[in-house]
Amino acid sequence: MSTNVLLTGAFGRVGTAIIDQLADDDRYEFTYLNRSDRDEYDTFVADVSDLESIRPAFDGQDAVIHLAGYPETDGTFEQTLDNNIRGMYNALEAAKEAEVETFVFGSTNHVVGMYEVDNAPEIYSPDFGLTVDEDAPHRPDSYYGASKAYDEDLGRYYVENFEYPKRFYALRICSVRHEAYDHPYGDAEHGVDDGRWERRSEEYEEMVARMKAMWQSRRDLAQMVERCLEDDEVEFDVFYGVSDNDRRWFDIDHARDVIGYDPQDNGEEWDEPPA
Amino acid sequence: MSTNVLLTGAFGRVGTAIIDQLADDDRYEFTYLNRSDRDEYDTFVADVSDLESIRPAFDGQDAVIHLAGYPETDGTFEQTLDNNIRGMYNALEAAKEAEVETFVFGSTNHVVGMYEVDNAPEIYSPDFGLTVDEDAPHRPDSYYGASKAYDEDLGRYYVENFEYPKRFYALRICSVRHEAYDHPYGDAEHGVDDGRWERRSEEYEEMVARMKAMWQSRRDLAQMVERCLEDDEVEFDVFYGVSDNDRRWFDIDHARDVIGYDPQDNGEEWDEPPA
Repeated sequence: MSTNVLLTGAFGRVGTAIIDQLADDDRYEFTYLNRSDRDEYDTFVADVSDLESIRPAFDGQDAVIHLAGYPETDGTFEQTLDNNIRGMYNALEAAKEAEVETFVFGSTNHVVGMYEVDNAPEIYSPDFGLTVDEDAPHRPDSYYGASKAYDEDLGRYYVENFEYPKRFYALRICSVRHEAYDHPYGDAEHGVDDGRWERRSEEYEEMVARMKAMWQSRRDLAQMVERCLEDDEVEFDVFYGVSDNDRRWFDIDHARDVIGYDPQDNGEEWDEPPA
Repeated sequence: MSTNVLLTGAFGRVGTAIIDQLADDDRYEFTYLNRSDRDEYDTFVADVSDLESIRPAFDGQDAVIHLAGYPETDGTFEQTLDNNIRGMYNALEAAKEAEVETFVFGSTNHVVGMYEVDNAPEIYSPDFGLTVDEDAPHRPDSYYGASKAYDEDLGRYYVENFEYPKRFYALRICSVRHEAYDHPYGDAEHGVDDGRWERRSEEYEEMVARMKAMWQSRRDLAQMVERCLEDDEVEFDVFYGVSDNDRRWFDIDHARDVIGYDPQDNGEEWDEPPA
């Protein structure tokens, strides 16, 4: 008997990492919900800002992995209000009504982003010494970060007050790259993936150090999600989505202890790509 | 030179306590913003869910005490979205644009309300032993509590990222009563003020114990606000709005240390009202 899993925002960087790593796993039967469809996948086309449109996709699911939302720190208040705040309420309401047991939420390091901003660039050094754990007070660096903080709090309200969902996992995912760039700072062919950084510039060096600290490989992200889907103990918890990077300042011991997260990768493994 | 202070949601329980205690203080020049006016006061009539309507009231202010919003735990998601989430964004935007230095926010114990729910009624005993402090992870008990948690986080985002406001004080106000009922459980003439409780019933006894734990007298609330208006050190902080009640489980040492809060009252002082 496989576990039915609804994946919202299925075709972004994080969603495709989950599809790549887990879609062929016999334990899971995935449904992909996205705002727009893709030729290669059956897609339930719906927008999370509209409860009626997404509600039917939750019927019969054992778990939802909720990734849909405005995904960047440049989002305005209005963008995060509709897609992230109302979107989360809609996803939780749908999960409650459809009696979905497990809710895995794609949160972000930007919920606590100011610990980085206050300490950059020194924080990117492996021996900086700061650790931010699951109980660190929220310090959002953006409307986006604040909206995801609300989403976590709302998820906790639901699991502590309603029958469903029964389990809520807030994954503060740091930096998962596109498949072509599953490397802390791009690769030799494609370079750095967002094109904003001049190679060898001072900013480029800083960005490399940051990516080595923040990176979560696609297989480590998928393993963390799989650990949540297999867990049956947690009511509410927060885990940081990073690989076992020497330079990370986010705690992963809590994820190791509670759900058995066992990351395989470390940003230090990568050298400079050939010029 | 007096301090210009804008009071939003001026005519509720908390706002009127501030007016009663501080309006005649020569140090302050108040402007009252409210959705509806009252004969006895000059009122700037505006709704916090509409930025354009409130924006002019912020010009020339040194401080804002932001109390306007949906005030009860029975609020729906939609009610808290417009009045509390959008309302807070609007108030912060107006304060930023008008260069208002100090932002005192009327938050609530319901941001962390589940610590009570999980431990009631034993938590109402003076020797229960739980202390919830300013760093306790958010555990809202309602959409209302979740919206106020967001408001605190958004305030922190603003003071840490924009020039104004410069100082943000989140007061998690517990139970301030109407003037006629400034007593933990009503008074002899009026009885318990919300009328839902049968005197001498088991629920009544529990409610009395709860009010003795949660009460903040109107003068202690106003003193806490005055301590914030006079402070010039805090960038962001969270304080619990309770009197020095034997039964409180919310920490006040932090408020004593940081802003010099010195509560004068204790819920235990009150005996049963005469029958």
